[in-house]
Amino acid sequence: MAEENTVFIGKKPTMNYVLAVVTQFNSGSKEVVIKARGKSISKAVDVAEIVRNRFVQDAKIADIKISTEELEGEEGRTANVSSIEIFMNL
Amino acid sequence: MAEENTVFIGKKPTMNYVLAVVTQFNSGSKEVVIKARGKSISKAVDVAEIVRNRFVQDAKIADIKISTEELEGEEGRTANVSSIEIFMNL
Repeated sequence: MAEENTVFIGKKPTMNYVLAVVTQFNSGSKEVVIKARGKSISKAVDVAEIVRNRFVQDAKIADIKISTEELEGEEGRTANVSSIEIFMNL
Repeated sequence: MAEENTVFIGKKPTMNYVLAVVTQFNSGSKEVVIKARGKSISKAVDVAEIVRNRFVQDAKIADIKISTEELEGEEGRTANVSSIEIFMNL
């Protein structure tokens, strides 16, 4: 899976990421991975659902993985944050 | 899947739902489903990750489904909201 087929969900409006995923598919990608951490996870699910319901009806959710990442905070403390990867393909 | 094996994620603290899932497993359930909608989806992922990393190490994520639900709002308007179901089993 090339990194270029991955869309990272951040603080921008949902539709920005929807457009990014749709653009990937329209430029020939057969698979796009939507990744998010923490509170952005809900937005990642919104993006996947909007893409397949409204823009790329042939796209399927191939797999969804969740995991825990350790983030290094101030003073060397670590914080655990959940993450999600949604694999969409045609 | 009996409704009693389902934990709905709402506005309470994350650990309340972790406890609910752990209690289900400890009382003999082989499968527990964690359900959430909208912004609670991130919390649902946190709950699943905390359960399997800290409390029920044998528990696996069997499946994750996402979908869109239509909610009826005021004046008959409808709003779409994403939802998630995380199937955990022993």
